[in-house]
Amino acid sequence: MTSNLATAQDPTGSPPRPSPAAIVALKAALGDIPFVDDPAVVRLRSRDFFWYSPILKEELRGKAADLVVMPRHEADILHVARECTARRIPIVVRGGGTGNYGQMVPLAGGVLLDVSGINRVLWLKPGLGRFEAGAKLIDIDITAVPTGWELRMHPSTKRTATIGGFVAGGAAGVGSIRYGQLRDRGSVAALRLVTMEDTPRAIELRGDEVRSALHAYGTNGIITEVEMPLAPTWPWTEAIIAFDDFMTAARFAQALGESAGIVSKLVTLIAWPIPSYFKPLREFLPDGRTIVIAMIAVPSLEPFHSLVKESAGTITLERPTPADDDPSVIPLYEYTWNHSTLQVLKIDRTVTYLQSIFVPGRNLEQVEHMYGKFGDEVMLHCEFQRRQGRVSCSALQVVRFSTAERLREIIRYHEENGVRISNPHTYILEDKGPKIVDGDHQLAFKHLADPYGLMNPGKMSRWVPAP
Amino acid sequence: MTSNLATAQDPTGSPPRPSPAAIVALKAALGDIPFVDDPAVVRLRSRDFFWYSPILKEELRGKAADLVVMPRHEADILHVARECTARRIPIVVRGGGTGNYGQMVPLAGGVLLDVSGINRVLWLKPGLGRFEAGAKLIDIDITAVPTGWELRMHPSTKRTATIGGFVAGGAAGVGSIRYGQLRDRGSVAALRLVTMEDTPRAIELRGDEVRSALHAYGTNGIITEVEMPLAPTWPWTEAIIAFDDFMTAARFAQALGESAGIVSKLVTLIAWPIPSYFKPLREFLPDGRTIVIAMIAVPSLEPFHSLVKESAGTITLERPTPADDDPSVIPLYEYTWNHSTLQVLKIDRTVTYLQSIFVPGRNLEQVEHMYGKFGDEVMLHCEFQRRQGRVSCSALQVVRFSTAERLREIIRYHEENGVRISNPHTYILEDKGPKIVDGDHQLAFKHLADPYGLMNPGKMSRWVPAP
Repeated sequence: MTSNLATAQDPTGSPPRPSPAAIVALKAALGDIPFVDDPAVVRLRSRDFFWYSPILKEELRGKAADLVVMPRHEADILHVARECTARRIPIVVRGGGTGNYGQMVPLAGGVLLDVSGINRVLWLKPGLGRFEAGAKLIDIDITAVPTGWELRMHPSTKRTATIGGFVAGGAAGVGSIRYGQLRDRGSVAALRLVTMEDTPRAIELRGDEVRSALHAYGTNGIITEVEMPLAPTWPWTEAIIAFDDFMTAARFAQALGESAGIVSKLVTLIAWPIPSYFKPLREFLPDGRTIVIAMIAVPSLEPFHSLVKESAGTITLERPTPADDDPSVIPLYEYTWNHSTLQVLKIDRTVTYLQSIFVPGRNLEQVEHMYGKFGDEVMLHCEFQRRQGRVSCSALQVVRFSTAERLREIIRYHEENGVRISNPHTYILEDKGPKIVDGDHQLAFKHLADPYGLMNPGKMSRWVPAP
Repeated sequence: MTSNLATAQDPTGSPPRPSPAAIVALKAALGDIPFVDDPAVVRLRSRDFFWYSPILKEELRGKAADLVVMPRHEADILHVARECTARRIPIVVRGGGTGNYGQMVPLAGGVLLDVSGINRVLWLKPGLGRFEAGAKLIDIDITAVPTGWELRMHPSTKRTATIGGFVAGGAAGVGSIRYGQLRDRGSVAALRLVTMEDTPRAIELRGDEVRSALHAYGTNGIITEVEMPLAPTWPWTEAIIAFDDFMTAARFAQALGESAGIVSKLVTLIAWPIPSYFKPLREFLPDGRTIVIAMIAVPSLEPFHSLVKESAGTITLERPTPADDDPSVIPLYEYTWNHSTLQVLKIDRTVTYLQSIFVPGRNLEQVEHMYGKFGDEVMLHCEFQRRQGRVSCSALQVVRFSTAERLREIIRYHEENGVRISNPHTYILEDKGPKIVDGDHQLAFKHLADPYGLMNPGKMSRWVPAP
């Protein structure tokens, strides 16, 4: 596979790296702020899960920061921002490093700012919470759930991802069947960001203003705090439901998602043979069957069982969702969203994957068409979620790779049939698809917050450095 | 207006009344079960809000039970059922008497069974509660809310209606924007009913089985207990938002209902001049403006305000929803659902009304068409709610009545344009519209539970008494 599969290359070319002298001077200016410059460690910390993509794997090979800086509080971040701005040294922010697109892989060296040490729950009140950017999603829920509230949605990487990383690089997740997309109005209450102006400062973006920095890969601000709406907690049950037939399962997933009377948090459709790669669950995954993985509120189990029965499904596993502070059981959500792909890749590194967004209202028809067209070559895995006021689905298809030509053909066929491909083989923000990037809010905010183009350079292709 | 507007007459004719001797014998057989037979009191208790309809007002004039019996517990109900069955005396169950279609007006005398004294909260657990049929909705929430749970939906008559009456005659209400329709799978967990077999017994219907007796006007069982799913409580704010233009308001209502990120409980669209009749709120209702009445979770207020601003709305009132146990403030929901009509009728008894169901996905287009077609003659009041997996609306239009011919024309025009009319001018269950009645489950259950056709006779037109 060659890199020409990426739909766009970095139009700014490879951003210039800081000089060794500048890095030496920076280290001296850091004072007591901890940092690591052991090249082996820095190289390791400079990676995320981009290796899902053979294209990114090639493109990002060897890319690394010059040093990893570990700020202890926002004052440290302001200090680092000032010293880096003065020396025109790039900063890339790292949370849990769970991204799949090389979002936080430094293209131009400089500082990898590891904010995982800045991770306090600042406050919780009914329906809202405020967190430092490095707070892990699981730790937020461990703190919040006893108060009766939980995050509305989280990625399948809940156990390692941070809240700052989620809003900087995520789009949706477990909970999106109820609360929609991260970019929906109201999904993120506020962001606090540090700029890289000559005199860096912290700026608060509230309400609709958060669009400026949401899903911007940290190209226009160092997120230091995130205020999020919370959902009332439910006791959750997780289940696997097996079906004889793919479309029967798909229709069940749609019906479950649309059931106003049944409280669900996760509705995932996974076509055989993807489940054959889920080794730890094999006893619950009958050969040849499509499965649905679901999270259902305990008080909704009775109507859920009625719907399963009516839909000719068989429940092969049903158990309480493991508590966040119980590391002994792997929750089923770690077989959904992009973890499904990971489970396959653990066993077979020759496959690759796609991400696509189906049209609300036509999604089942499109899914059926693609399933019929590609069969096992493009193994379907769909995540049901609220989108544009509807229940629809996106897919993270696992693709049996043959040639780059064939992959292009598959992508083209989807696009020609109205299925939007959100290219997982690019680290360029704009190439993720037209709707991922929120217009010029992001660019305008970058002009304000990052006038020298030092934040995660090379990721936002619209940005043209001042001459 | 003449009665020929009703789309169907009772096909069974006027059911026979019990003989005076049978009533005398029944009274003697009641033992210590309290009853009232003062004709003035019985006549008064035999009425509901059918007088909204001039047609029902005429048809139901003078209809009354022979006596009102006030059971104290289920054993009393079994006793009354046995004694009535033996003497072929009809029973009509009365909860809060808040129906609008004469559902509980006895057509054939007999016993009016007032279950309002059987009203305990039997138990509450996370997400589920069980209540005796006569429990008032407001009392359920007063008990449940401190435990962190509340009813998913309630009619605008929350302060007087009972849970048994709601499931026997209601369809949706405040909360349906989130939890859909009462007939959606999972909206009612279980019903316990007493039969009128030779030896009456109590039967439990669980899950999908509840379809047999849901919205059956008490024609096939005396509901004694109701188990309902509960929703997590939110702190609710209620607001009035005014708009210069009807369709701007309608699009706002749709967008608010579809906002996955904004937690709402009520989204009501009311065209001018209906608000001119809301006297206690006049200071918040600018002349000539369409309003939206909404209930929004407090943590969602910030994104709600953004949406209002984007939609060119003006918030004229925003306050905490009055607590259920605070009788000093009238909650805004008492200006929504069928209370809107009541507020108009309080001032102008010459109007009448319609109920109609718009097609999900086409509802705004249909609403716009009808608004343009009829203007102030058919004043639009729409309730937004989840329906078939979508956010759609139904309407309770206030109609300036001219002639019966014109009213028929209005109804026909709606039907010809794909808007389903749920006729509010009939007490016949089947005439409420094809989807209100759940197929033959109800009829089959009536054959089992009411072999002699003694339960609310004359309301279920499919029922043919055994020869």
